[in-house]
Amino acid sequence: MTGTPSPRYAYLGPEGTFTEAALRTLPEIARVDPIPLATVPAALDAVRNGEAEGAVVPIENSVEGAVSVTLDTLAGGHLVITREILLPVSFALLARPGTQLADCKRITTHPHSAAQCRRWLAAHLPQAEVMLASSNAVAAAAVAEPGSEFDAAIASPIAAEHYPLVALAEEIEDVRDAVTRFVLVARPGPLPSPTGSDKTSMVAFIRDDHPGALLEILEEFAVRGVNLTRIESRPTGDGLGRYCFSIDCEGHVAEARVGEALMGLRRVCADVRFLGSYPRADGARPNLRVGTTDADFESAASWLAQLKEGR
Amino acid sequence: MTGTPSPRYAYLGPEGTFTEAALRTLPEIARVDPIPLATVPAALDAVRNGEAEGAVVPIENSVEGAVSVTLDTLAGGHLVITREILLPVSFALLARPGTQLADCKRITTHPHSAAQCRRWLAAHLPQAEVMLASSNAVAAAAVAEPGSEFDAAIASPIAAEHYPLVALAEEIEDVRDAVTRFVLVARPGPLPSPTGSDKTSMVAFIRDDHPGALLEILEEFAVRGVNLTRIESRPTGDGLGRYCFSIDCEGHVAEARVGEALMGLRRVCADVRFLGSYPRADGARPNLRVGTTDADFESAASWLAQLKEGR
Amino acid sequence: MTGTPSPRYAYLGPEGTFTEAALRTLPEIARVDPIPLATVPAALDAVRNGEAEGAVVPIENSVEGAVSVTLDTLAGGHLVITREILLPVSFALLARPGTQLADCKRITTHPHSAAQCRRWLAAHLPQAEVMLASSNAVAAAAVAEPGSEFDAAIASPIAAEHYPLVALAEEIEDVRDAVTRFVLVARPGPLPSPTGSDKTSMVAFIRDDHPGALLEILEEFAVRGVNLTRIESRPTGDGLGRYCFSIDCEGHVAEARVGEALMGLRRVCADVRFLGSYPRADGARPNLRVGTTDADFESAASWLAQLKEGR
Amino acid sequence: MTGTPSPRYAYLGPEGTFTEAALRTLPEIARVDPIPLATVPAALDAVRNGEAEGAVVPIENSVEGAVSVTLDTLAGGHLVITREILLPVSFALLARPGTQLADCKRITTHPHSAAQCRRWLAAHLPQAEVMLASSNAVAAAAVAEPGSEFDAAIASPIAAEHYPLVALAEEIEDVRDAVTRFVLVARPGPLPSPTGSDKTSMVAFIRDDHPGALLEILEEFAVRGVNLTRIESRPTGDGLGRYCFSIDCEGHVAEARVGEALMGLRRVCADVRFLGSYPRADGARPNLRVGTTDADFESAASWLAQLKEGR
Repeated sequence: MTGTPSPRYAYLGPEGTFTEAALRTLPEIARVDPIPLATVPAALDAVRNGEAEGAVVPIENSVEGAVSVTLDTLAGGHLVITREILLPVSFALLARPGTQLADCKRITTHPHSAAQCRRWLAAHLPQAEVMLASSNAVAAAAVAEPGSEFDAAIASPIAAEHYPLVALAEEIEDVRDAVTRFVLVARPGPLPSPTGSDKTSMVAFIRDDHPGALLEILEEFAVRGVNLTRIESRPTGDGLGRYCFSIDCEGHVAEARVGEALMGLRRVCADVRFLGSYPRADGARPNLRVGTTDADFESAASWLAQLKEGR
Repeated sequence: MTGTPSPRYAYLGPEGTFTEAALRTLPEIARVDPIPLATVPAALDAVRNGEAEGAVVPIENSVEGAVSVTLDTLAGGHLVITREILLPVSFALLARPGTQLADCKRITTHPHSAAQCRRWLAAHLPQAEVMLASSNAVAAAAVAEPGSEFDAAIASPIAAEHYPLVALAEEIEDVRDAVTRFVLVARPGPLPSPTGSDKTSMVAFIRDDHPGALLEILEEFAVRGVNLTRIESRPTGDGLGRYCFSIDCEGHVAEARVGEALMGLRRVCADVRFLGSYPRADGARPNLRVGTTDADFESAASWLAQLKEGR
Repeated sequence: MTGTPSPRYAYLGPEGTFTEAALRTLPEIARVDPIPLATVPAALDAVRNGEAEGAVVPIENSVEGAVSVTLDTLAGGHLVITREILLPVSFALLARPGTQLADCKRITTHPHSAAQCRRWLAAHLPQAEVMLASSNAVAAAAVAEPGSEFDAAIASPIAAEHYPLVALAEEIEDVRDAVTRFVLVARPGPLPSPTGSDKTSMVAFIRDDHPGALLEILEEFAVRGVNLTRIESRPTGDGLGRYCFSIDCEGHVAEARVGEALMGLRRVCADVRFLGSYPRADGARPNLRVGTTDADFESAASWLAQLKEGR
Repeated sequence: MTGTPSPRYAYLGPEGTFTEAALRTLPEIARVDPIPLATVPAALDAVRNGEAEGAVVPIENSVEGAVSVTLDTLAGGHLVITREILLPVSFALLARPGTQLADCKRITTHPHSAAQCRRWLAAHLPQAEVMLASSNAVAAAAVAEPGSEFDAAIASPIAAEHYPLVALAEEIEDVRDAVTRFVLVARPGPLPSPTGSDKTSMVAFIRDDHPGALLEILEEFAVRGVNLTRIESRPTGDGLGRYCFSIDCEGHVAEARVGEALMGLRRVCADVRFLGSYPRADGARPNLRVGTTDADFESAASWLAQLKEGR
């Protein structure tokens, strides 16, 4: 008896990336078939076109900020976030066994990793040339190749498990306690149930470029007591100064205050793309303002129904 | 065959007041049985306790402002406004035939009328003593009494139709184009249908006396694109600086933007007393902001329903 | 040696009113020459035209709300408030000695007092006719006259000190703990120094009747962390729905946050009439929001000056 | 006679980048000594430490959004923007002479350029591997090297002027009319004079991470009628969800409404870094709201001064 096939989860590969490490934290990982893909759009497209049931991609980094390509690809629609994953981020300088730190003349890594280790590099390897790679894992693989043109790679320590490399230095990031936020993305379907500690993500396209548009958007949330946890303006590509807003708010769309805020947003915006309601990785629960619980909304609705009927 | 009895409409009497003139403008007046009562609370209580089907009372004057006793009595509940009536207001100085202007030493009138003719009195009868009466019609009646202690009354010109008085001067009000707004009040029942040019009245009791309470109330309306046409703070009687707000807004509670604003108000306030949705006397139609029509609300609700179902 | 003449303080007379009682609480009362005048406008005009140095008038009552005539006369300009006085208010039913409660058929009093004893009258003297007087003291005087047409007056207990009357009932007000707020008004001159517990009063005339005008006004205060303690809309007399706003806020105009809020108000309004900064009678001190002290304003101004100079 | 030495302007090199093209549009270019540097931080540091008088760096792209490294380096302080430059952006596929489009298996370019030509690549070279380079000019140089591992580079057409390359395809960007905004940066000094069409840039660090912080910031501008032209949240590096805001607004800090908004921002924020007031490249002039001109601010200040003196 063969059973159901394992669900396929695409992720930003190759093997050995932080994204793989994030994927490995999922509770269902034992029965998942992981598929490394070369880019975030490739991983998300695999879900869109049915080749995978889910995709894990990075969305936000506590040092570098939003991962633009993820936000922009999600804004394209037909996908929702069903979970978020927080992963502490730390970098190591990996080299072939026998290499000395002083030998490191050409270093390769992803641009974000280079940015996050800028000060360490300036202090310890001021003469080294940094060559960009499309991922840290690609960089590690390139160093591991026989006759490599590179002396070392900045990468996740776990890359050393996949390649014959050793760490010349660890925790070389300029900012300690860096965290990257990843999301598990799926095709639209039944939403995860509200847990009391949820987030809702969306993209709001403003109707036209009037100066007060952002203030209007924020007021739709504020008046219903819904706090935002992240807001990013992203260019729509239609000209300088034309933006959409990528927004995360506290709460689940099944909660009345969130649902009403989203409907308000939908009415004042040219378009709103819903990107999912899902449990928060940090388990934080919102401090609800008086008058914003589901019971408050129900009670107000009953009151309105009564007075409309003249009772 | 006897037919249905005429509906009884109480009004702020006695006969000859501006309120009677307002009552006379009602389209159903031919089949109404008018009942003059001595005070606004008496007229409204007659409706509350079933002695009358309706009551016409003044609520706002373009010179003196809100009629406090009406606002406060309506705030007591169990009544709704079903129509508003606008009446131009003009005053005459009425005296017994044969009286000369120079003879007028003691004048009687209602305090509001005295206030509205202050400058005319100062200019034309600077020495005259003004004695207050509970209504202009009472004042006119007092002047008409044989052996009256008064020489003249400031009253509506129509009071001269009820009493043997003549006008020594007309249009003596300091501010021309004064208008008084009256309301027809009934017990709660089926609301008048929306006409596209309606008003909704209510009283909002703030939860506690925090400084931003009024701003919060205004934002509940503003965020849904509902304009206010009047707002008055009124003491609740519980101490200086404790207020409720008497509010008129554009639109009908059956319209989505008004209904949602009222529910929002209900959630942020300690209490909200609904005082009716009714056609505007001036027929003005609101300039609806983009995204605030009933169709916009329905479309946003369908969208929300779909995304909650994962479609 | 004659010395300086005593300053004359007009007040809303006649003798025996609550206003006289308020005047008597002033610390400088021993060297003041009190002048009772018949109306609030008369008392304020006496200051305007130099006949008096000050005037004490009622401005707000915890039951009836604002004293419209005071607000409207102050809005006429050329006067500022220099002090506020809070006075507990209690009413007595005063009659000639020998009168029994059951004999009271005709009662006279000021309309506000009648309103505040409405329920007591309905319970104890349901058949009595209430005749309005221009003040409680006038009412008391009228009852005291030989052959008076009135049986009793509702007035301040202290009226019994001026007239040969006795109290048939005391504390007959419907709402206990009622307080009336009086103000001492003077011609513009050097302002009272800030005490850390001050109020500032003003009247704001909106530029035109746009729906968001009140919200704009409130935001000028809110953005600078200035709390309002009272706001009243008052008709300007130019037509229904045309208002000005009578406003009290926390703080002294010499404090930066209040000064900047007033300048902001001045810029968004058609006109602003400043009515004085003066110590609060209740001694309450504002809870200043972070960033709104005078030191914060000075520090921000130095910073701006530096960066404008390119330092 | 030798004359003054030419001012040195650093820019994001190497030669052949879009940034060099932007630098070439400066009116003073004839007497400038251009210094290509490898990174944005290097170019800005050259100004900070006095090696250059100015630096031209990209700050915003109509497709990819903000240039994070520029925002973050400017946020480090001690620099101001003195001019902005808008440059249309178009890409070419450059190769060694003789190369056919079909031969292009390995393509190199900067990550932003790769992102902006994603669809063209997918359509015309779906099998090609894209290797990242630190700039388009570096990519072009790499392709031009004898024995290069790359077949083609995506770069500015002007790179073909510096290297022996030909264009296999032009205008291959997915979005036409893309524009990049560059800024000329200098050490703090006398500001450029207001022109009536200016922008002011700053970074606002919020005091703590309270949900309403962004709303507060926006209101400081809105209440003074200052429009924002760009706002970006940027992580401060202190943990997920901790942001500062990079802001451009209309107007010059020497204008009263802008100066007061900045002081307000300074008071509500933990810190504000001023990044300059400079002429707009597009020459657009703000639509000033009533009450927000310098004359309005002066008039309000005179009024306040008068009433503080009791006149």
